[in-house]
Amino acid sequence: MVETIEWTADGVVMIDQTRLPRETVYVTCKTYEEVAEAIRSMVIRGAPAIGVAAAMGVALGMLGSDEGDFDAHLERVCGALAATRPTAVNLFWAIDRMKRVAQSLRGHSLNEIRARLIDEAVHVYREDIAINRSIGANGAPLVPDGKRVLTHCNAGALATAGYGTALGVVRAAVEAGKKIAVYADETRPFLQGARLTAWELQQDGIETTLITDNMAGYFLRRGEIGCVVVGADRIARNGDVANKIGTYSVAVLAKENGVPFYVAAPISTLDLTLADGDRIPIEQRAAAEVTHVFGVPVAPEGISVANPAFDVTPNRYVTAIITEKGVAYPPYEESLARLAG
Amino acid sequence: MVETIEWTADGVVMIDQTRLPRETVYVTCKTYEEVAEAIRSMVIRGAPAIGVAAAMGVALGMLGSDEGDFDAHLERVCGALAATRPTAVNLFWAIDRMKRVAQSLRGHSLNEIRARLIDEAVHVYREDIAINRSIGANGAPLVPDGKRVLTHCNAGALATAGYGTALGVVRAAVEAGKKIAVYADETRPFLQGARLTAWELQQDGIETTLITDNMAGYFLRRGEIGCVVVGADRIARNGDVANKIGTYSVAVLAKENGVPFYVAAPISTLDLTLADGDRIPIEQRAAAEVTHVFGVPVAPEGISVANPAFDVTPNRYVTAIITEKGVAYPPYEESLARLAG
Repeated sequence: MVETIEWTADGVVMIDQTRLPRETVYVTCKTYEEVAEAIRSMVIRGAPAIGVAAAMGVALGMLGSDEGDFDAHLERVCGALAATRPTAVNLFWAIDRMKRVAQSLRGHSLNEIRARLIDEAVHVYREDIAINRSIGANGAPLVPDGKRVLTHCNAGALATAGYGTALGVVRAAVEAGKKIAVYADETRPFLQGARLTAWELQQDGIETTLITDNMAGYFLRRGEIGCVVVGADRIARNGDVANKIGTYSVAVLAKENGVPFYVAAPISTLDLTLADGDRIPIEQRAAAEVTHVFGVPVAPEGISVANPAFDVTPNRYVTAIITEKGVAYPPYEESLARLAG
Repeated sequence: MVETIEWTADGVVMIDQTRLPRETVYVTCKTYEEVAEAIRSMVIRGAPAIGVAAAMGVALGMLGSDEGDFDAHLERVCGALAATRPTAVNLFWAIDRMKRVAQSLRGHSLNEIRARLIDEAVHVYREDIAINRSIGANGAPLVPDGKRVLTHCNAGALATAGYGTALGVVRAAVEAGKKIAVYADETRPFLQGARLTAWELQQDGIETTLITDNMAGYFLRRGEIGCVVVGADRIARNGDVANKIGTYSVAVLAKENGVPFYVAAPISTLDLTLADGDRIPIEQRAAAEVTHVFGVPVAPEGISVANPAFDVTPNRYVTAIITEKGVAYPPYEESLARLAG
């Protein structure tokens, strides 16, 4: 399986997800600023992977700290990483976790603190893979045998430290012997479905059919799809789900056609401080992502563009939320609090 | 305004819609086979425009007829044009109309028949523009003032002889002084929204924001959109509507958010021989339209692709159907029969 991100002696190594599947190129971030830029430019993306990258970014950044400047430098590093992307809460979760570890080590030698931060970042990485295996195990029984699974964007190995959340559920269902195949929404504008999901499922030999986003309704209406499984970037206390733009549409179409709609995400994607999804900040990205495809213009010059990168799916469309601690069903206010607690 | 198609002494001239908006290139079809190929490869597209092209194709093809071979040649020409694309009924409507004219002229000189067929084709062209003006006049009062209009694909001047059906309604509303702006779905895979709708509305100075198809739900949910207006490729007796892939999704999302969903189409788009939309043949197009954008690969090599070019929106999602003869409301079985009769 592909390595999404790795801590090495040379720095944080990532596969460049902006260039897949045409080129398999690895980049090495040698500074926390380079990690921040990799997150911002989506060299690495996917809520859990962003969390891992941020944790490694903090560890990398604190290699440049000195005794007198420790607290200020910690704030600087964490601030730069937190300012990259606003929606995925795993970013802030990972930064807070690293910050707490750093602060708990006050009084220890700088060398020890640095080593412990690297340990913690590598632990976040390893933990994420284990979490995804548990999400897969919890979700696999929900996947109807002999039908298609529809997924949107990439909540796969590339969106995580490995194995994936939504695609972790698919992988676990396949490992459990279920005869399933996948419809992958291409997921404009960034084409995570066409470029990343199709690619990683193809590498695993899981039967996959690529469709444009606007075909999902057609196939849902035809009754070929047994369930929808997607990831999440942030889940509010009431179970409203922020995820890649277009997720809301898929959820409405699934409900309209009586198809279960599942969200697969680690507990770290929960934001219990937010009462509902309308409080989740939605990132607006550059127009060029819509007007150009791999640098090729597909729209007239000077046209206005909107590019919200995420949308919010109200909890009434969500059949269940699959986490590493178990499956939450409505009412989510209770079930999510129980799993998180 | 741009000229979509024109009968000239040199042949049938069309703007090449596969190359817009990057290049404004006109092609001249000198044989009916070239017209058929232009329809098949979507040099010209849009149900009414396809009808006009087919009528001109028949006239062009019959220039090559001779006395002894007249009937067989008519069948050959009409057969070749009818075999290009299966979904838009305007194609078959126009071919039948031309065939009836040819057959009604039995006994007349070949020169006279040829001249009359050219007249008829030019008449189909002129009639289409007048029809679109009427559709616009009938539809404009339905468009809420001061809000956005969402449209999918291109049902504009480029999809017709001129003015457009859905965009005819937009143009008429603007001409009536309404302060409206347009959200244009880019409409993958062929990008008619990004390439054609955005382009022609930009040329007309109508404020337009380009979005990816999967953003339509996001904006419908935010309450910014006053109504949806789309075209149609075929409308069954009960008001089920076949239109560009993704229309069904927009219709479901509009209904879910209490936004009126209007279909604008000429009477020639009605197919009263079909009881419902599930009987409408849906064209499946080549995988390369999905995997490549202007020749640039956006998906891994060898991936399976589905590419249905149209979907069917059940009548329960359609608020009204705007035709040149008036506006049809449910129950459509009655209202459409009345308008068509």
